[in-house]
Amino acid sequence: MLVECVPNFSEGRRLEVVRALEQAIASVEGVAVLDTHWDPDYHRCVITFAGEPQAVARAAFLGVAEAVRRIDLREHRGSHPRIGAADVVPLVPLRGITLAELVPIARALGERIWRELGVPVFLYGEAASSPERRELSFVRRGNFEGLPRAMQENPARWPDFGPPRVHPTAGATAVGVRPPLIAYNVDLDTPDLEVARAVARRVRESGGGLPGVRAIGVKLSSGHTQVSVNLLDYRTTPLHRVLERVKEEAERFGARVTGSEIVGLVPEEALWQCAEHYLGLRGFGPGKVLERRLAEVAWGR
Amino acid sequence: MLVECVPNFSEGRRLEVVRALEQAIASVEGVAVLDTHWDPDYHRCVITFAGEPQAVARAAFLGVAEAVRRIDLREHRGSHPRIGAADVVPLVPLRGITLAELVPIARALGERIWRELGVPVFLYGEAASSPERRELSFVRRGNFEGLPRAMQENPARWPDFGPPRVHPTAGATAVGVRPPLIAYNVDLDTPDLEVARAVARRVRESGGGLPGVRAIGVKLSSGHTQVSVNLLDYRTTPLHRVLERVKEEAERFGARVTGSEIVGLVPEEALWQCAEHYLGLRGFGPGKVLERRLAEVAWGR
Repeated sequence: MLVECVPNFSEGRRLEVVRALEQAIASVEGVAVLDTHWDPDYHRCVITFAGEPQAVARAAFLGVAEAVRRIDLREHRGSHPRIGAADVVPLVPLRGITLAELVPIARALGERIWRELGVPVFLYGEAASSPERRELSFVRRGNFEGLPRAMQENPARWPDFGPPRVHPTAGATAVGVRPPLIAYNVDLDTPDLEVARAVARRVRESGGGLPGVRAIGVKLSSGHTQVSVNLLDYRTTPLHRVLERVKEEAERFGARVTGSEIVGLVPEEALWQCAEHYLGLRGFGPGKVLERRLAEVAWGR
Repeated sequence: MLVECVPNFSEGRRLEVVRALEQAIASVEGVAVLDTHWDPDYHRCVITFAGEPQAVARAAFLGVAEAVRRIDLREHRGSHPRIGAADVVPLVPLRGITLAELVPIARALGERIWRELGVPVFLYGEAASSPERRELSFVRRGNFEGLPRAMQENPARWPDFGPPRVHPTAGATAVGVRPPLIAYNVDLDTPDLEVARAVARRVRESGGGLPGVRAIGVKLSSGHTQVSVNLLDYRTTPLHRVLERVKEEAERFGARVTGSEIVGLVPEEALWQCAEHYLGLRGFGPGKVLERRLAEVAWGR
C-alpha cells in the first residue's frame, strides 16, 4: 500500500524552517520526501512525501508538530488563504488502498493532532463530517484571523476535534483524504489582483468554468498576479485546457499569461496529454512511451 | 544489458504479413515486441522490440528471413525510400551496453543475413565501414530500383557483405548501430510534394536547418503530404522545435500543419519537454514527475 501526503505549511520564507519540517517528516522510517516547494509570496511550502499508510500518518504528525513549534501565525502575512501553521494535510491513495480506507487513518491523525498538540482539526474531502466540509474553501473561509468569529457565530464551523477555539499561534489544521490533484499556478502580467480574481472566477467550476477546477486570484510581490489552480481530475480537464482558458479570460481584461508552474509533483500522463495536444499527435497513447512499455514488459527503469 | 531493435520492413498493407514478421521476432525467448507501426502509404512497417543483445540479434535475423520470404520488392510501390524487403535494421543500446559494443553484433548479424539468406548487407551508423556510409541516405540512394546500377558504377556503393548484386526480390538490407532517435511525421494540408520536399530541405540539418534533424517530403494517398523526420537527439532539438519550424517553413508556401505522429516509441523526456515548452513551465525538471520520483525511491510503477 502506498500513500502520498502533501501537507501545506505556512512558511515560505525561512528556509531553515522548511528544512526542519522536511527533516521531521523524513525522520520516519519507510517515508520518502519526494518534493519540497516553497513560495515567499505565498509564505507557504508544500512537502510531498509517500510511504506505507501508518508511516505516512506518523510522519505527517511530526511535520505538524514541528510547524506548531516553529510558526507563529499572528505574524504571518502571505498571499494565500490559510487557517493554520500546518494549514492542510491531505492523504492521497497511490496504490493498493482506497479513499475510504484512508478515512479512519485521517481521523486518527486529526484526533492525535488535537490531543497532543492542542490544535483543533477540521476533516475535509472524503473524510469530511458534512457535505459542505468536503470543500477546503468552506473550511478555510475567513482565514486564521476570521476563524474565531466564524466559530462563534456558526456551529457548522466548529472543528471535528477540539473546542471551537483556535490555537493562539498555530490556528487550526484541515486533515483530509482526496484523490490525486495537480496544483498549478498560471502567471499573469497584470498587477491588478481584481483581474486575477475575475479570471479565477471564470475559470473555476463553481463559476461555470472548467469541471474539477478550483481557482483563486493571488497577488505576487513582483507586482504581478497569479491564478492559483487545483486541478482535481486531469483526465476530465487537462492542464493545457486550464492554461488556454486562463489565457482567453485574461485577454478579455487585456492581461497576458507569462508562464506557469507546477506545485509539488505531476503525474506523467498529465504531461503526455499536453504534448499530445500541442503537437497534434495522431494515434498517441501510453503505449507509445518507451519507458512505459519497458516497464510493462518488466524491464522498467 | 538491454538492446532495442527497430527494423523497417517494406510491407504496410497486408496486415497478415506484418503479423507474421512480428511473430517471427517474438518467437525468440527473452525478446519483447514493444510496438508495431504500419503505414499503407509508406507501404512500410516499423517493429520495435527489445531484449538481451544476442536474443535481439537472433530475433532480427528471423524477422529479416520472414521478410525475404514474404515480400517481393519488384511489385512494391510506396512513398518512402527503401532498398530491401527488410530495409533497415538498427540496433540501439538502451542500458548496460555501448554503441561500440554493439558494432560486432551488428556485423555478425549482417554477415549471417548475407550467408544464410543471400541478401547483400550494408553496414551503417556506428557500424559503417566508411564515413559516408554512416548516413542511411547515402546507403539508400537510388532505392531498390537504382541500386544495381549504382553498384555497377561505383565501388563505394558495394555492400559490406555479399557481391555487388541485389537479391532479386528482397533487394539489400542496411544493418546498423545508432543512438535512440525519434521518428516523427508532420502532416501538411498541401497536395504538392514539392512543397513538402522544400520544407523538409529547410528543416533538416543538411539544409542549414535544425541540428540532428533528417527530413524528407512524402506524398500521401489522401492527397496530402508529410514531412517525415528522424530526430537524432531530442535534447539538442526538441520535438516542439521541429514542429514549430515545419509550421514556419510551410507557411512560406501557404501550407498548414494539420497534425503529427510518432512512429514507434518516444522517450518520456521528449514528451515532458513539449509540455514544459507549451505550458511555459517555470522550475520544471524530471524531479517534478510523480512516477519518476517514485521510481527513484524504489517504489516504481
